[in-house]
Amino acid sequence: MIHSSAFIGENVSLGENVVIEPDVIIGNNTTIGNFVVIKQGTIIGSNVYVGDLTSLGKTPSSNKKMARHPAKDIPPLLIDDQVTIGNHCVIYKGSVIHKGILIGDLASIREGVEIREDSIIGRNAMVENNTYIGKRVTIQTSSYITADMTIEDEVFIGPCCSSSNDKYMGMGNYEHKGPTLKKGAKVGNNATLLPSVTIGERVIVGAGAVVTKNITDDDVVAGSPAKPLNKRKIV
Amino acid sequence: MIHSSAFIGENVSLGENVVIEPDVIIGNNTTIGNFVVIKQGTIIGSNVYVGDLTSLGKTPSSNKKMARHPAKDIPPLLIDDQVTIGNHCVIYKGSVIHKGILIGDLASIREGVEIREDSIIGRNAMVENNTYIGKRVTIQTSSYITADMTIEDEVFIGPCCSSSNDKYMGMGNYEHKGPTLKKGAKVGNNATLLPSVTIGERVIVGAGAVVTKNITDDDVVAGSPAKPLNKRKIV
Amino acid sequence: MIHSSAFIGENVSLGENVVIEPDVIIGNNTTIGNFVVIKQGTIIGSNVYVGDLTSLGKTPSSNKKMARHPAKDIPPLLIDDQVTIGNHCVIYKGSVIHKGILIGDLASIREGVEIREDSIIGRNAMVENNTYIGKRVTIQTSSYITADMTIEDEVFIGPCCSSSNDKYMGMGNYEHKGPTLKKGAKVGNNATLLPSVTIGERVIVGAGAVVTKNITDDDVVAGSPAKPLNKRKIV
Repeated sequence: MIHSSAFIGENVSLGENVVIEPDVIIGNNTTIGNFVVIKQGTIIGSNVYVGDLTSLGKTPSSNKKMARHPAKDIPPLLIDDQVTIGNHCVIYKGSVIHKGILIGDLASIREGVEIREDSIIGRNAMVENNTYIGKRVTIQTSSYITADMTIEDEVFIGPCCSSSNDKYMGMGNYEHKGPTLKKGAKVGNNATLLPSVTIGERVIVGAGAVVTKNITDDDVVAGSPAKPLNKRKIV
Repeated sequence: MIHSSAFIGENVSLGENVVIEPDVIIGNNTTIGNFVVIKQGTIIGSNVYVGDLTSLGKTPSSNKKMARHPAKDIPPLLIDDQVTIGNHCVIYKGSVIHKGILIGDLASIREGVEIREDSIIGRNAMVENNTYIGKRVTIQTSSYITADMTIEDEVFIGPCCSSSNDKYMGMGNYEHKGPTLKKGAKVGNNATLLPSVTIGERVIVGAGAVVTKNITDDDVVAGSPAKPLNKRKIV
Repeated sequence: MIHSSAFIGENVSLGENVVIEPDVIIGNNTTIGNFVVIKQGTIIGSNVYVGDLTSLGKTPSSNKKMARHPAKDIPPLLIDDQVTIGNHCVIYKGSVIHKGILIGDLASIREGVEIREDSIIGRNAMVENNTYIGKRVTIQTSSYITADMTIEDEVFIGPCCSSSNDKYMGMGNYEHKGPTLKKGAKVGNNATLLPSVTIGERVIVGAGAVVTKNITDDDVVAGSPAKPLNKRKIV
């Protein structure tokens, strides 16, 4: 069903059984797959590709155990031109997906997220609310990007990395703060980042490392807990 | 298609193209999203929210390599009042989801699981068969809860945690036993729990720790393998 | 919608709202769930089970940041007899799924993959492109199998394992090479495998281990980085 108040651009290809709610805008030459759900007010640019069985513009949920309840009056989801979105994705309202981004199958992005141009969000990656991801960032398959995290341009996050933002682990209303990854930092697969650590520019974090402290620019670290290595040994 | 033998309560909101099989019961004021599949006999309470593209009441599958074949005569899936279920979830028959639970997008729960009141199962979390999860438990995004595991009330499991229940790793018909987490235990992100370990009450397991042995009440452990820390250093 | 050029065998059970594109072939006694999308040219054998909300035969995508663009002229997806596929899966064209395989819910398999008879790909497992998986292999829930990886017969990979294939982490057009797991190797849950390591026959890798070097046949390793253990201590 396509609501009569939705605006569909020229040369748009719609799959079978799409659900397009009121006030949705879809730009020219965009492709929407089969069994796609686009919630009220979502804005999608031109030359966008949305895979089958994906849902866009979801409103956050909560239950009474959650520390933070979702904000009211969340703005619509904005998806810029030339974005490619996989199958089975869930992207919330209140986020901005800039031009040229690739989002893999089964990925999910919460509300209040901004992702800048030409970045990649891998398959099955989960991005939590209020996180900023810069330009030309790669987040590989199955990585977990916590809430309130800052990822600068050209950061590389390997597959299955994990981050967190709550050092008291649910004990109360303490401030939540995710890691900061400075420009060009690289994180190996299945690394663990603790809440609020800062990882400097061009740092290399080895696969499987557990980062418990800040790391200064250009350092190379590995291990559990992560410690600096002699850089000559690395390559 | 809604089968004529299904019972739909008052003031139920049904999305487009839902499939509701025979003998399903849906309580009052419940919302069912678009492209939702509800298998035969599933019982859903009142004031429940089921997101788009979710499937409820699936029957287990197996192939000839699997150690244990699914039980026959599995009872229906029971979802109590005020449960919120995300998009793209898969929940099997033979499980009981108590009142007030929140289940995130892309999560899956197998057969024979019981989850008690007001707990949270995070996005993309996987819960295997025959596991018990108590009240007010938090299981964060992308965590893996193995089969035959016991999680007591108010346990907190951070994102990307992993557990296992088969110390012989597929070598034969040995007993499978998952970890036990006692009341109020907290597990940091991307921690690894080995088969059959017991984690005591109020224990804190650091992020990225590998828990190979039982941990006594109130201990704080970290590292690979996990060892007790001086508690004063932790906060 | 079922395209008129598709061939549907005898005694096939089709769910509601399936999308079957041109030139698809489906063998006898096969079951296709609700809201399933089968892309052009996909070949499915007899006695296959495809769960609800699954998509088969997807064409790869890319954006300009990706090191390797998907090949053109990819052959169709081939699914042999007696394969069981879960709900919410995404399987790409150009892969071959042999007889008797079980693929769990929410799993994804990219292009150019071959999986041999009677193997298990767990729920939420991600298998990247151009990887070979032998016979009677078990890959448990939420594990990540990188591209260009070789997994021989009877390997066991526990839940939440991670592998990688790019030791320069996105720095350029270096060769990508995933790990090799020789016959009968076993990998514990949440272990991390670095690019291009070879894990010998019957090796046991402990849960949470970080494998940075080759491991010779019959060794037992654990830790971060993984080192050989006295085998008597293991069981």
